[in-house]
Amino acid sequence: MTRTVGILGGGQLARMMVLAGAPQGLRFELFDPAADACAGQLAPLQVAAFDDEAALAAFAAKVDVVTFDFENVPAHSARFLAERVPVYPNPDALAVAQDRLSEKTLFRELGIPLPPFADIRSRDELAARVGEFGLPCILKTRRLGYDGKGQFRLRREADIDAAWTALGAQVERTGLILEGFVAFDREVSVVAVRGRDGEFRAWPVTGNWHVDGVLSVSLAPAVLSPAQQQAAIGYARTLAERLDYVGVFALELFCRGDELLANEMAPRVHNSGHWTIEGSETSQFENHLRAVLGLPLGDTRMLGHACMLNWIGAMPDATAVLAQPGGHWHDYGKQPRDGRKVGHATLRNDDAAALAAGLEAVGKQLDRGDQVAPAADALRA
Amino acid sequence: MTRTVGILGGGQLARMMVLAGAPQGLRFELFDPAADACAGQLAPLQVAAFDDEAALAAFAAKVDVVTFDFENVPAHSARFLAERVPVYPNPDALAVAQDRLSEKTLFRELGIPLPPFADIRSRDELAARVGEFGLPCILKTRRLGYDGKGQFRLRREADIDAAWTALGAQVERTGLILEGFVAFDREVSVVAVRGRDGEFRAWPVTGNWHVDGVLSVSLAPAVLSPAQQQAAIGYARTLAERLDYVGVFALELFCRGDELLANEMAPRVHNSGHWTIEGSETSQFENHLRAVLGLPLGDTRMLGHACMLNWIGAMPDATAVLAQPGGHWHDYGKQPRDGRKVGHATLRNDDAAALAAGLEAVGKQLDRGDQVAPAADALRA
Repeated sequence: MTRTVGILGGGQLARMMVLAGAPQGLRFELFDPAADACAGQLAPLQVAAFDDEAALAAFAAKVDVVTFDFENVPAHSARFLAERVPVYPNPDALAVAQDRLSEKTLFRELGIPLPPFADIRSRDELAARVGEFGLPCILKTRRLGYDGKGQFRLRREADIDAAWTALGAQVERTGLILEGFVAFDREVSVVAVRGRDGEFRAWPVTGNWHVDGVLSVSLAPAVLSPAQQQAAIGYARTLAERLDYVGVFALELFCRGDELLANEMAPRVHNSGHWTIEGSETSQFENHLRAVLGLPLGDTRMLGHACMLNWIGAMPDATAVLAQPGGHWHDYGKQPRDGRKVGHATLRNDDAAALAAGLEAVGKQLDRGDQVAPAADALRA
Repeated sequence: MTRTVGILGGGQLARMMVLAGAPQGLRFELFDPAADACAGQLAPLQVAAFDDEAALAAFAAKVDVVTFDFENVPAHSARFLAERVPVYPNPDALAVAQDRLSEKTLFRELGIPLPPFADIRSRDELAARVGEFGLPCILKTRRLGYDGKGQFRLRREADIDAAWTALGAQVERTGLILEGFVAFDREVSVVAVRGRDGEFRAWPVTGNWHVDGVLSVSLAPAVLSPAQQQAAIGYARTLAERLDYVGVFALELFCRGDELLANEMAPRVHNSGHWTIEGSETSQFENHLRAVLGLPLGDTRMLGHACMLNWIGAMPDATAVLAQPGGHWHDYGKQPRDGRKVGHATLRNDDAAALAAGLEAVGKQLDRGDQVAPAADALRA
C-alpha cells in the first residue's frame, strides 16, 4: 500500500525528506506559497497561501499524513488539517514552538534551565526589564522570527529607543519578548526523534557556530562532557514527552562552562542535523518519516566525526569538497540570493585530526578559512 | 550552472541515480518505452522506443550528458546520441558488453581467465562443442539475455535437440554462444568506477547468491583471500582501461577454489552494488554520476559489513527490516509482478556476527530463512 506524505513548506528540508522517503516507497505532495519551492523539482507542488482553507482541504484529500518543513505555518491551518488527516507533530506542539514566550515558559515549567526572559508589552516594560536583566540583552518578536530575523540586540541604555522603534510595532501582531544575554562559550543542539508510540532517540549532541544569526557550521559529536550530553538529551526527551511530540525536532542550547541553558526548539528537521545524512546510520529525514508513519525508528548512532558547512547566498565550486575523502555535496537547486541557504557540504571521517585537515583544505581552496577554523580547532582540542 | 543528465532506461537503477544526483544539484531527463517506468515518479520521463531517432534527437537536445540504466539499448541508438551529446560509457564499450561473444573474446585477449565458450551457428556445431566442453553446459543468446532469460542448460546428450528447439531460431537474430559449465564454489562481483580522466576505484569484492538466474543476496566484503580480491579488481581495471570505460560497471566472476573465472560484465550500476548506498562512503550511483560528469570520484571504502536482500515479485512487510539496527529499505515504487525486482533491503553492521543474527531475525520474521541462510553462514565462517 503506497502512502502519501503531505509536507507544508517545500524548501530544502522538504526536498531532503522526499529524497529520504522515496526509498521507503513513499509518495509526497507539497504545499507552499512559492511556485519555485525547490522540493517541487522532485514531487508535486500545490501553490497556495498557508491560510487558504479551500487549498488546504484539497491538499488533505490527497495525503495520508501531514507534516511540516516550516514551523511558521499558522496554527489554525495546522488544526484545520488535523480535523481531516493525521498531522505530526501535533498542532499544539507546533503552536508552543512557534511562540518564544510559550516555549520558554514551558522550559521553565519543565525545569530546563534557560536565560532570563520576559513578555514585553510597552517601551516602559522594556526599559524596566533591561534594568533587571542587565546589558546586553535581546528583544525579539514572539513569533515568526528565524535565522536572526525579527531581533534587536541592545548593547547600551540608549538602544532601548532604537529597539522599540525597530520592533515596537510588532507588539500587537507577533508579541515581543526580551531575553537576557548569555556570554556562552559554545552553542549546541540536540536533534532527536520521538515515535507515535513514544519511543525516543537522539543523535549525538552537535556543536554549532552561527554568523549573523544564521547557522554556518555544525560539528558532531560536540565537544561536551558525558554529563552534559546526558543532560541535554534528557531535556529534549522531557520536552518531547510533555508535548506528545511525534517526529524530529531540535533543541538549541548555550553552554557556559558546565552549565547548559536552553535557547529554543525547532519543531521540525533541523539544519544542525544535516550531517546525519552521511554521518549516522539513519538520517534525521528518514527518522522523521518513520516517526510520522508509525514505523520503527532507525539507529541514531553516528559513524566517526562529521562536519557540515552551510552555503549561504550562492554555491561555491563543488570540486574541493568532492575531492576530500568523505566529502559530500548538497545543492538544493535554489536560485542564488543574499542570505539564502542554498546548499551545504558534509565532511565525514573516522579520525578527528584527518577531518580537521580536510576542513582546512576545503577552507583554503574555497577561500573560506574563517568558516572552517572554529570546527577544525575544536577537532584538534 | 545546473547540469541535466539524460538516462536511457527509467527503472530502479535510474531511480536510484536520480536520488543520488539530486543532492549534487543535478536535473534528470529519462527515456523509456514504458510510461510507468518507476524513475518517472521523480524526474521527467520521455516515453518512446529506444530506436525512435526523432525522440532520441529531442532527448539529446534537453540534456548535457547521456548515460544508461539498461544495457540493451541498441548500439546504433547510443551512437546516434553520441553524435549529439557526450555519452558515457561510450557506445563501443556498451556494444562489447551487449554481446557475450565479443565480451568473452575480449576477456581472453586481456588474459582474464574464463570458462570455455564458442560461437554456435548450427545444431551440428552445438553437438560438436558439447562433446568438446563436456556436460553440463549452457547455450545462451549472444545478446539481449539477462537475469537467466535466453538460456538453456544442457545436462545430457539428449538435451541438444531441446536446446536447439528452444533457442536455435535466435541464431540469426541475436546469435548463440555455448559456455562450459563451471562447478563453482562461489560467485562474486567487482563493482568499480572509472572517471573521464582514467582514475579507477573499486568497492570491496561482493559475494552473490542467485536463485533461478536472478540475484537474491549480496554480501560485502565477499569471503575472498587478499590475493583473490586483488586479482579480481585487477581484471576489472584492465577491462575498463581497454574499453576506455567511463562510469560504474560490474564484472561477475566464479570462484573455484583459488581460481577466478570471469562470467560477464554489466556496463552500468549493478544490483550487486546496491549495498554501497549505506555501506560505503560513496554509493555506486553517486560515483557513476561523478564519473560521467568529470567530477572527482568519491571514496569507495566500505564501513563494516553489508548484506543486500533482493525483493522479487512483491514487497514484503518493511517492519522486520526497519526494526533491525542498520536496516535500510528500498521500495522502487513498482507494481508487483512475478519475477520482477521490486525492491531490496540492506542490513549494515560493524560486526559480522551481529549482521548474521540480524539477517536470521529478518529471515525468520519474513519467512525467508532460505534466502538469508547462505549469507549468514558466510558471515559466521
